[in-house]
Amino acid sequence: MAVFESGRFWNNHLVSPGKVMNLKEQLDCLFNPRSVAVIGASNDMMKWGFNILNILLAKGGREIYAVNKNGTEIQGLQAYRDITDVPGPVDVVVITVPFKDIPAAMKECVGKGVRAAVIISGGLSETGGEGAVIEREVLGIARRGGIRIVGPNCMGHFNAFSNVFTVPYLPPVRKGPLSLISQSGNTSQSIVHLAYDMGLGFSKYVSSGNEADLHFEDYLEYMAHDDKTEIILGYVEGLREGRRFFELAKETTKKKPVVIMKAGRTEAGARAARSHTASLAGSDTVSEAVFKQCGVIRVEEVSELVDVSLALLGQPLPRGRRVGVLSTGGGGAVMAADALMRQGLELPELSSVTMEKLNSIFSRRWSHGNPVDNGGDPFDYASLWAMMEDENTDAVLISGAAGVARNMSGWVNVPDSIGEAVDQWIEATEADELVDVTRLMELMKAYQKPAIFCNLAIPSKKIGALYKRLEQSYDIPFLTPERAARALARLVEYSEYLGIAGGRG
Amino acid sequence: MAVFESGRFWNNHLVSPGKVMNLKEQLDCLFNPRSVAVIGASNDMMKWGFNILNILLAKGGREIYAVNKNGTEIQGLQAYRDITDVPGPVDVVVITVPFKDIPAAMKECVGKGVRAAVIISGGLSETGGEGAVIEREVLGIARRGGIRIVGPNCMGHFNAFSNVFTVPYLPPVRKGPLSLISQSGNTSQSIVHLAYDMGLGFSKYVSSGNEADLHFEDYLEYMAHDDKTEIILGYVEGLREGRRFFELAKETTKKKPVVIMKAGRTEAGARAARSHTASLAGSDTVSEAVFKQCGVIRVEEVSELVDVSLALLGQPLPRGRRVGVLSTGGGGAVMAADALMRQGLELPELSSVTMEKLNSIFSRRWSHGNPVDNGGDPFDYASLWAMMEDENTDAVLISGAAGVARNMSGWVNVPDSIGEAVDQWIEATEADELVDVTRLMELMKAYQKPAIFCNLAIPSKKIGALYKRLEQSYDIPFLTPERAARALARLVEYSEYLGIAGGRG
Repeated sequence: MAVFESGRFWNNHLVSPGKVMNLKEQLDCLFNPRSVAVIGASNDMMKWGFNILNILLAKGGREIYAVNKNGTEIQGLQAYRDITDVPGPVDVVVITVPFKDIPAAMKECVGKGVRAAVIISGGLSETGGEGAVIEREVLGIARRGGIRIVGPNCMGHFNAFSNVFTVPYLPPVRKGPLSLISQSGNTSQSIVHLAYDMGLGFSKYVSSGNEADLHFEDYLEYMAHDDKTEIILGYVEGLREGRRFFELAKETTKKKPVVIMKAGRTEAGARAARSHTASLAGSDTVSEAVFKQCGVIRVEEVSELVDVSLALLGQPLPRGRRVGVLSTGGGGAVMAADALMRQGLELPELSSVTMEKLNSIFSRRWSHGNPVDNGGDPFDYASLWAMMEDENTDAVLISGAAGVARNMSGWVNVPDSIGEAVDQWIEATEADELVDVTRLMELMKAYQKPAIFCNLAIPSKKIGALYKRLEQSYDIPFLTPERAARALARLVEYSEYLGIAGGRG
Repeated sequence: MAVFESGRFWNNHLVSPGKVMNLKEQLDCLFNPRSVAVIGASNDMMKWGFNILNILLAKGGREIYAVNKNGTEIQGLQAYRDITDVPGPVDVVVITVPFKDIPAAMKECVGKGVRAAVIISGGLSETGGEGAVIEREVLGIARRGGIRIVGPNCMGHFNAFSNVFTVPYLPPVRKGPLSLISQSGNTSQSIVHLAYDMGLGFSKYVSSGNEADLHFEDYLEYMAHDDKTEIILGYVEGLREGRRFFELAKETTKKKPVVIMKAGRTEAGARAARSHTASLAGSDTVSEAVFKQCGVIRVEEVSELVDVSLALLGQPLPRGRRVGVLSTGGGGAVMAADALMRQGLELPELSSVTMEKLNSIFSRRWSHGNPVDNGGDPFDYASLWAMMEDENTDAVLISGAAGVARNMSGWVNVPDSIGEAVDQWIEATEADELVDVTRLMELMKAYQKPAIFCNLAIPSKKIGALYKRLEQSYDIPFLTPERAARALARLVEYSEYLGIAGGRG
């Protein structure tokens, strides 16, 4: 893909007296540093300088240095007064000192040969005036000295695989295929939290802050090439390089999905965005058109970032808008039908072959049409095979396929004979599991159809096994049919953009 | 309230040779039975007759009987061949036998003087034909014998306070102020699950099934009078007594909120609803108008049932649409502003008094307007007092007010001196907590303003304490600003309906 190979977007920096590094090498260093120093390291537990040093020490795996102008011992480490006092080489610094002290610190970093600086401190361009002047000064020092800057006014970064975390205020993070670029640290906390709750894991994360130096577009370019990143998530308030974003996104979405929550859609939101990251949110109509033309999956609610990820991972994109619904109860069928229709998706009639198959699988109570309600019987995989094989469906949404595991654990006074029967049943279920999951994966591939599980009440062991088998780190299906339908609609649109699905109508 | 006192809606039944019971007495008996018998009790763990008997035994607290035509021992109990063989009186029976066997069982129940029958079995009117004929026959027997029927084709019922559960397939249930009437057992599983995840608890629950005898309206009337029910939740596909519903809801919503998810909105959904509960979904435009005129809070997504409950509980209704947003980060402010605007709510300018207060509380980084972004500093309750006291706000939404508790638990290598400081800080925080929460409650009451917490990343101990203090059983704030904004908008509409808030515009 020419846009990546041409070098057109590489921001080369002359590292004096070192060598020229391109963007990939610079960000490789940021995400895989041999050593990290915290400038502003602290023993005060309420300070960033305490918490960042602490998480770096907790994660381990590299040289960690504490820098503090008072030079006392910090968290058991010798504290250096100045980065230049640090004995070994320093790849990355994290700066938490007050904004007026940053220019001096940056000059010392240049002297030390630091590669990248994560500036946590706020009070710079986002406040205008003196802060903006200092931000420009810091940027000049860094540019001349070959240091790339993350932030300022940001929350740090991580690489879950190399175990480097300069962000202390996050919920637990699993390793996984998502990478997140966020123009809000605050919001990235939410996204990581939501992902954790859905069982999803991350590769890389960056809170881009004011983007004085490194822009959203730089991280996007890097993630596009990163083998460990399968889906790029973004929280955006304003893009600084619209044209570059467009060309980059257009190439990237051909090979991996880019899912973006663009905030500042309303007048009040746009005003807030201006104040937050000194960014112009721009006309939302323009943003919408741009995202559409370059295949970006735009979402409207922050939770959709993880919902779409869950639907995308390990599954084929649908070839069209026709969804077969399979439910173990009427309510799940009705709500799924409503939710899909509201998203502009279609509920086709089932083929006569499928109708025959379902008649032979279900009791006479079943709904005899799409959405399929089996009448409240336990979930039967044979009915899922029938729905997957139906020539009229492009995707299958399974609503309310409840397992019994949770219920069983609450049983009381169970006689030995029943206990034995339960053990046998669990054994048989586990043996079936692999067979069923393998079969479903074959059908997904053969028919290019995703199967979206939306099991509200009781997570089924089989569904968990399916997701594990798909080699994703998650095992939790969607909580509501509405969220599942929204995510599926975004998949269909992306598929239409890529030409895999035919266009609407 | 005349509609309740007139007796107009009581369905009196002559219990021969016993006394006349009104609807309240009948449902009191259903929800507080002295004894329950399972007709169709089983040792087969895959059967309802196993699981219902098992949960009844697990919960204990009353006489439980097993009835099975083969009369063997079941789960350690003597099994009776016939309900008339049971030695003691039986208030409630749960029937799980095949539909053709129900008429005979019901006749025996009449002989035994049973008060209410929960018929789990399906295959009746929802399938038409023979099933519908049998349902009418069963209804006739029950009516003549003075037995009220829940279902058929339902999932059971519970009263969390009297600890009677005839529904085995639910996530854990907390005691609490919600009661749920659901025309889908399947969907009620989801609702109970979502409520559990949000920390909400229930008083009473009923899966109304085909509503052969007891209708949604009967349960609604009962819950309206139930002191333990503060909010009535409903999942509805079709109402059988539209006029009665309207009058009942109109009176009920004056004293407690009625929140309804009405499914079958779309053509495909309505078709599915017909097949599911043999109910006519009717025109959605008509439903919408009816709900609006009787003050029912209608929600569009199943998760909103619990979101609206969370926002309603223990808080005053807002006096208008003007929302002050208070955020500890820019992203939370921008997303909240977008979400509120999209819901038709307003973000007013703050009063000059509030601006002065916030200038003195925050560092110069703050956003200097509504939405208020404090610039990333820790949450300060003084800023919340200022927002609550502002004459321009009708409600306050707090977005991203992160605590540090989770982070602290991950600390490593903390020297003793810091450990002591942490202990002191936690002690001080806990002492402050009660003061802050008491103050917030005073302000809520004084200004008739709800304060909605939407703290995505890290649940704060203070927020938990607030909710506990409000004597609700929950301690979890909203996960996303979009969900919080949607719930708040429903509160505003309800408040406008009640005349507490002025109308729109």
